[in-house]
Amino acid sequence: MPVPIIIDCDPGHDDALAIMLAAADPAIDLLAITTVAGNQTLEKTTLNARRVCTIAGITDVPVAAGCARPLLQPLAVADDVHGASGLDGPRFPEPTVDVVPEHAVELIHRILLEHPEPVTLVPTAPLTNIALLLTRHPDSAARIREIVLMGGSTERGNRTPAAEFNIMTDPEAADIVFRSGVPLTMCGLNVTHQALATPEIRARFDGLGTELGQVCSELLAFFASTYSRLWGMPHPPLHDPVAVARVIDPAIVDVVDANVTVELHGRYTRGATVVDLHRYLDRPVNARVAVRLDTEWFWDRMVTAVEVLGSRRTT
Amino acid sequence: MPVPIIIDCDPGHDDALAIMLAAADPAIDLLAITTVAGNQTLEKTTLNARRVCTIAGITDVPVAAGCARPLLQPLAVADDVHGASGLDGPRFPEPTVDVVPEHAVELIHRILLEHPEPVTLVPTAPLTNIALLLTRHPDSAARIREIVLMGGSTERGNRTPAAEFNIMTDPEAADIVFRSGVPLTMCGLNVTHQALATPEIRARFDGLGTELGQVCSELLAFFASTYSRLWGMPHPPLHDPVAVARVIDPAIVDVVDANVTVELHGRYTRGATVVDLHRYLDRPVNARVAVRLDTEWFWDRMVTAVEVLGSRRTT
Amino acid sequence: MPVPIIIDCDPGHDDALAIMLAAADPAIDLLAITTVAGNQTLEKTTLNARRVCTIAGITDVPVAAGCARPLLQPLAVADDVHGASGLDGPRFPEPTVDVVPEHAVELIHRILLEHPEPVTLVPTAPLTNIALLLTRHPDSAARIREIVLMGGSTERGNRTPAAEFNIMTDPEAADIVFRSGVPLTMCGLNVTHQALATPEIRARFDGLGTELGQVCSELLAFFASTYSRLWGMPHPPLHDPVAVARVIDPAIVDVVDANVTVELHGRYTRGATVVDLHRYLDRPVNARVAVRLDTEWFWDRMVTAVEVLGSRRTT
Amino acid sequence: MPVPIIIDCDPGHDDALAIMLAAADPAIDLLAITTVAGNQTLEKTTLNARRVCTIAGITDVPVAAGCARPLLQPLAVADDVHGASGLDGPRFPEPTVDVVPEHAVELIHRILLEHPEPVTLVPTAPLTNIALLLTRHPDSAARIREIVLMGGSTERGNRTPAAEFNIMTDPEAADIVFRSGVPLTMCGLNVTHQALATPEIRARFDGLGTELGQVCSELLAFFASTYSRLWGMPHPPLHDPVAVARVIDPAIVDVVDANVTVELHGRYTRGATVVDLHRYLDRPVNARVAVRLDTEWFWDRMVTAVEVLGSRRTT
Repeated sequence: MPVPIIIDCDPGHDDALAIMLAAADPAIDLLAITTVAGNQTLEKTTLNARRVCTIAGITDVPVAAGCARPLLQPLAVADDVHGASGLDGPRFPEPTVDVVPEHAVELIHRILLEHPEPVTLVPTAPLTNIALLLTRHPDSAARIREIVLMGGSTERGNRTPAAEFNIMTDPEAADIVFRSGVPLTMCGLNVTHQALATPEIRARFDGLGTELGQVCSELLAFFASTYSRLWGMPHPPLHDPVAVARVIDPAIVDVVDANVTVELHGRYTRGATVVDLHRYLDRPVNARVAVRLDTEWFWDRMVTAVEVLGSRRTT
Repeated sequence: MPVPIIIDCDPGHDDALAIMLAAADPAIDLLAITTVAGNQTLEKTTLNARRVCTIAGITDVPVAAGCARPLLQPLAVADDVHGASGLDGPRFPEPTVDVVPEHAVELIHRILLEHPEPVTLVPTAPLTNIALLLTRHPDSAARIREIVLMGGSTERGNRTPAAEFNIMTDPEAADIVFRSGVPLTMCGLNVTHQALATPEIRARFDGLGTELGQVCSELLAFFASTYSRLWGMPHPPLHDPVAVARVIDPAIVDVVDANVTVELHGRYTRGATVVDLHRYLDRPVNARVAVRLDTEWFWDRMVTAVEVLGSRRTT
Repeated sequence: MPVPIIIDCDPGHDDALAIMLAAADPAIDLLAITTVAGNQTLEKTTLNARRVCTIAGITDVPVAAGCARPLLQPLAVADDVHGASGLDGPRFPEPTVDVVPEHAVELIHRILLEHPEPVTLVPTAPLTNIALLLTRHPDSAARIREIVLMGGSTERGNRTPAAEFNIMTDPEAADIVFRSGVPLTMCGLNVTHQALATPEIRARFDGLGTELGQVCSELLAFFASTYSRLWGMPHPPLHDPVAVARVIDPAIVDVVDANVTVELHGRYTRGATVVDLHRYLDRPVNARVAVRLDTEWFWDRMVTAVEVLGSRRTT
Repeated sequence: MPVPIIIDCDPGHDDALAIMLAAADPAIDLLAITTVAGNQTLEKTTLNARRVCTIAGITDVPVAAGCARPLLQPLAVADDVHGASGLDGPRFPEPTVDVVPEHAVELIHRILLEHPEPVTLVPTAPLTNIALLLTRHPDSAARIREIVLMGGSTERGNRTPAAEFNIMTDPEAADIVFRSGVPLTMCGLNVTHQALATPEIRARFDGLGTELGQVCSELLAFFASTYSRLWGMPHPPLHDPVAVARVIDPAIVDVVDANVTVELHGRYTRGATVVDLHRYLDRPVNARVAVRLDTEWFWDRMVTAVEVLGSRRTT
C-alpha cells in the first residue's frame, strides 16, 4: 500500500525533484502539493510548483497556495541560492496545471479529515503552513501519521553559522511543529549533505534522453553553480527529496531518537535546531533525527522517478 | 452612527462588564463576541460569555469560540484572579444563549468582509485569535478600522514585574498584532488602573435595583477581594471596559503616539510591552497609547449601560 | 559615629552634589572617591571629580580612577545629558586636587581590609568597579557593610524605555553586584524622581552667597535645561545624592524588600532592573528598594552641606 | 628561540598533559602555570597543577591560583568527566611544588610587563582569569603576543548540544576575550577530536618505562572510560595539548580566519561559539580557527615530552 502524503514546499530546485520523486514512486500516494513563501515569494513558489507539475506531467494532484510570509518575522528569500525565479536554470513552458481555489491550510485540513487513513506530511519548506494548520485546526494532529520534514541540522547551518534555511525563515512556526506532539522525523543538513549531485548523477539524468531528464540536469547544474559559488562545495546536496525517500523506505535513512528544540532567543543562534544527541538537557524525545542516507539507493530511486515521469509524458 | 465592533474576550470579570458596555451603549454596534483561552480555558471563557449574554439579555449577538491555547507557549490561566470558573462570585442561571458553529477567526473574517464599513476589533484577552486572523486571512487587515485592545502597560506588569496578563499569555500573538500595521490603540494597566471600582461604584450598581445590577456588584466584590489579596489594592481596576470606552468616545481616553514593541526574548521581561514614549529606540510609531481616563464619564457610562440592560430584561 | 563610605562615581552633575553631601554631612565619613567611565569617559569623570573636590575644598579624601569601559559592551556616554565635559554649565578653575596612583579597585579593596569597621559603598555610576572588586577580591564582600547605589528603577528607564543609565551602561557588572549576596539598597529613578530641583531649590543655593552655592545653582540650571529638552520635565531630578541621603539617615528614604534581577537577555529590555514587588517570580529577596523620599529633609540637608563646604572654603 | 608562554588551566586530565608538553618541548619557554575553577573547584585544580608539576619534575615554573568562580554564573564543575578529584585515575604523591603567593591575574600581568618580549597565553580552561586580566589591566593587551586557547567548537558542543565546556562555564569571560582585539587562535572540539588517545597511544606511554609514562597512561585510561561511558566514544580526545602544539609549530594545526562570537543570550545555545566560516553575518575576522591537526606529529611530540620529563626525573 502506498503511503498517502502531502508535500508542503517552496520550489526551489530540490523541492522540484522532491515533487517528482513523490509523484512517481510507487510507494507514495501523493494527495496534494501545497506551497508557502520561502526560497522565493509565495507567488513564485506557487508558479514554480505549477511549472514542475506541468513539465513532469503531474496533472492529477491538487496544488494549493498557503502563507505568503512567516508568522512573526519578515520574509527573507533565498534568491542567492535559487535565483530570481526561485527555479533558475531551465526554461519552463507556460504552466497548464493550475492551483485550486482553496488555501493550503484548508486543503490539508480537509484531506486529513476526509482521507480514510492518517496522512504523512512532508514539509520541505518553512513550516508556516503546518504551524498554522496545527494552531487553527488542532483536530488535525490526530489525523497526521507523521511529519517527515526537510529542515534543521545536527551540526552547522546554511543560512547562519547555526541555522538552516527552512527553520531560520520561520523559527516560531518550527517551534510550534516541533512541540506539537505529532510524530516527527527531521531530515537535516547533516543527512541531506550526503545526497550530493555529482556530474555523474547529472549524466544519469541526461542519459534518460527525455525533456524532463534534461530539465533535472539543468536544475542540478544551476544548483551546482550556486553551491560552488556560495560554499565552495564541488557538488550540491539535494536536500528535499531525502525526506520523501525516508517515507518511501524508512530503512534507507537511519534515524536516532532525540529531543530537538528550536532556539528562538539567541542573538546569533536564532533558528538553530538544538539536537540533544547525548541527552545533555534532560528533555523528552520529540523527534527522529536522520543521520545516514543510503546514497546509492537514493539516487537509483530518484533517477527512476524522473525516468518514469519522463516516459509517461512522451507517451 | 454607532461604531461597529467585535469584542474578542476571555470572561473574566472585567470582560463581562466590557460586553455589557458594548452591548448597551448607543455609540456601539456590537457585531459579535468571540472567545479565546486566557483568564480561563476556552471552554470556561466561552461558557462565561454565554452566561453574561444570558443574564444581560444580549440575545442578538453571535458568540463564537476561538483558540484554546496560545500560539507557542502552554496556557497559564488566571484562576488566582478570576476563580475556578473564570467568573467567580455571582450565581448564574443556565445559559440560554448558545455559540454559533463557526470558529471565532472565521466569524471575524466573514463579518469583516461582509460588513459595509470597516469594523473595529476590541480584544480584551490574549491576542491569539487576532494574530491567527491576520496570519490566516491577511486580507482582513484592510477591513479593520482599528484594533482597540486592553493589554500591556507603559509601566509595570501584573503577571510578572514587567508583563501584563493578556500580553504575557501569548507574547508571539501580541507581537504579530503590534507589528501588523493595522491602526492600534493600546489601553494598558497604566490607564485601566485609573478605573477603580470603589465601594461607591458598587453601591451605584446595587442601587439600580435590578438583578443585573446585583450581578455586577457581586462581580466587582469578588474582583475587589482578589485585588486586595494579591496586590493589597483597596479597589480593583476594571480593565476591559476602558477599551470599549475609548471606542465610544475617543475624547475621554487620552492617547499618545509611540512605538510599542513586545519583548519576546528577555529572561525576566518576556511579554513586556516596551512603550517608547521618549523615542529612545528610534523606531516608528505603531500605536496610540492610552494614558489618561476621564473616570467620572467612564463610570457614568458603565452604570448607565448596566441600567439599560437590566431594565430591558425586566420589561 | 559617622558612617564610613566610599563613593564610586562618574561626575556628572548629580554625582557632584552627591560628593559634596557626603563630604560635608556630619553623619558620613567619606573615605575615598573613586571614578569610573559612565556619564563621560574615565578621563573626564576623573577630571570632574578633581574639579568638584577642588571647588568644594575637599582635599583630604583620596581620589582614584578605575575602569575605563564596561565589562562586556562598549562605553556609551551620556553627553546628551551632562554635556561634552560631563559637567557642563559652570566654569571650573584648574583642579588642585590630584588622583592617587592606585587603581580604584585596589584602593577600595585596601580600605575595606584596613578600615576597623565594615565600610558602605555608595556607587552612583555604572557598577564596573564594584563588580571587578567583588570578582578580583572576593574577600571584599565580608568587609562591605552595605552597597547603597543609585541605579535602576521599579518603573520605566531613562536610557531606554526599560533601562536606567547606570545599569544599562554595564548590565553584566550590575548583575554581578545584585547577585553578590552583599546587603544592597537600590535607589532607582522611582525615588530619585522625587528629588526635583525646582527654581526655588536653585534659589536656595544662590542665596548661600558663596562661590560653591553659585556653582551648584549653575549645575542645576544646566541639568534643568537637559531635562526640559530631553524629557519635557520642568524640574530635573537630582539622582545621586539620594543614595547618600539614605546612608545619612535611613529613615528618610523608605524601602521595601524585594528580589531585583538585571535583565541581560532582552532584545528591548536589556539593562532593566526587574523589581519583583509582588513576588511573582518566587525568587529570594536580595535588595532593599527605595520607594519614598522625605523631600524636605533631603533638600535641607543638601543645601546645608553646600553651605558648610562653601563657608569652609571662604574662611 | 623558544616561544614564551603562560598556561592558564584547570587540571583536568588533558590539562595535565598540556602542562607536560609545554614544560618539556624545546620550542616552548613555560613562564608560569596559572589555575582557575573549571573542571573542578579552584582548590582542586590548583592542587592538581601542583601534583602534575611534582610528578613531572617541573619545579622551576611558578604556579599561581586565580579565580574561584565564573564572572556571572555559578560554577558547574565537570566531575562527570574528570572525577571527584579533577584528576582521577593515577595515585599522586604528596605534591612538593607549591603555589606562589600571588593571584594568577597579577602574576600574568607582572610577567607580561617584565618579560622582554610579548608573551603567548595558552588558556586551556574557562577564560575567567584572562577576562579579568584584560578588564583590570587593559595595558596587558599590548604585551600579549597571542592567545591560543582550547575551547569552543565549529560544530557541536560537549556540555550542551551547542556549547563546549570551557566556554559554557564562563560565557561572559569568553566574550570579553573574543572581543578583546588580541590576536587569538581557537582550538575547538572540531580539531581536538582529531587527537584521539587510542590504546596504541597509551601503549607508547607505557612503553616509556617511566613512572611518568605510567601516570600518563593511567590518566588516559581514566579519560577513555569517561568518554566511553558519556559519549560512547571508543577513544578519548586529548583536547588541551592541541593548543600547546599549535604554539610549538603553527604548521601542524591548520587554521582559517573567521569571526567567532560567543552566544550569551540563547535559551538552549548559550555558550556556543558561533564560527562564521562562510561570512553569513558580515562581521569582522577576530580569530584564527583551528580546523586540522597533524595527528602523527602531535603524538610524537607529546610522547617525546613525557619521555624527556620522565627521564629527567629518574636521573
